[in-house]
Amino acid sequence: MTESARSASVPAPPLTDTAHAILDAAFAEVLAHGIRRTSISDIARRCGIARQTLYRYWPDAQAVFAALVTRELVAALPAETAAPRSLTELAATLVGTADRIRRMPLIVRLRDTDPELLSRYLLDRLGTSQYVVHAELARLVAGGQSAGFVRPGEPTRLAAMLLLITQSAVVSAPLVDEWLDDSDWADELGSALSGYLRPDPS
Amino acid sequence: MTESARSASVPAPPLTDTAHAILDAAFAEVLAHGIRRTSISDIARRCGIARQTLYRYWPDAQAVFAALVTRELVAALPAETAAPRSLTELAATLVGTADRIRRMPLIVRLRDTDPELLSRYLLDRLGTSQYVVHAELARLVAGGQSAGFVRPGEPTRLAAMLLLITQSAVVSAPLVDEWLDDSDWADELGSALSGYLRPDPS
Repeated sequence: MTESARSASVPAPPLTDTAHAILDAAFAEVLAHGIRRTSISDIARRCGIARQTLYRYWPDAQAVFAALVTRELVAALPAETAAPRSLTELAATLVGTADRIRRMPLIVRLRDTDPELLSRYLLDRLGTSQYVVHAELARLVAGGQSAGFVRPGEPTRLAAMLLLITQSAVVSAPLVDEWLDDSDWADELGSALSGYLRPDPS
Repeated sequence: MTESARSASVPAPPLTDTAHAILDAAFAEVLAHGIRRTSISDIARRCGIARQTLYRYWPDAQAVFAALVTRELVAALPAETAAPRSLTELAATLVGTADRIRRMPLIVRLRDTDPELLSRYLLDRLGTSQYVVHAELARLVAGGQSAGFVRPGEPTRLAAMLLLITQSAVVSAPLVDEWLDDSDWADELGSALSGYLRPDPS
């Protein structure tokens, strides 16, 4: 999620300490007041820097929030070191990640107070972190195909459907909780992801 | 989609001819101008009735739009007469329906000009037509279980995950079209739905 689709192909440089401190301040402000009520001045004040300093990093509050969501979501992704060795392990990794993202205070806050920002990334265009998630999914699909536990098919194509399934489960889970409690949610998402990736039984 | 979740358990009475005429007028106004720019007066004028007459049917424009989306979506659902006889047929029915809904001019228009209305039904609460779709999915799941081509499990629970997968594919398809063109979209959605419902291979 976050930032323009066009910038996604150009990886952002690593954040400096000041940039991280600005995002930390923005995070605290958003959790306390929501995105709509958080201004550049609020963030600069909490960070203890001048507004002009902040503008050297991001042009407006929207860009700060975008970078914040990207930082938080990317941090929630699984480490690249642990390659799943079976479809069961792969599905468990994906469900665990989706569950972590679903419970992230920033995501909960966005759902509750700033749904129009979240919905932009469901209805309008992908953001940077969705591109990162898609690339990570494609990498896991390709790894599973090499190991023989994922069916053949263009990894970017399979990853696109995995992204659609998983992000819907993450953002819309509360809407179906009368039928899917938290434990069912994890079980059924796992069934959906492994059922989709399983090599053809015929 | 549409209307309050609380009203979903009470089926609406069949629409009268005047009610249908009002919704037809609302449909024409929305396609021409979008939801935000369409008022009760616009709808009444196009319908050739007094505003006071319209208020006897619905309390405000929002309620008219909700009833309109419900009418159009429910009309897009498959006829109950054709019970699928295999998992392949069931998946084809679901993909065909999703594809019809995705191309409905009203849905395209909502996506393009009124995403905040659409997003309410993804992030906030289910609407009447989502309850109708869920009940229809549960009925198809139960039928497939009786016939032996759908895995066991509470039909309402399986239907909830089918709803999450399908509505994401419907509303977010344009976001992933660089990896999933229209034909891939149908193939991969079919794989996702049948993979999810297929009896356990082990």
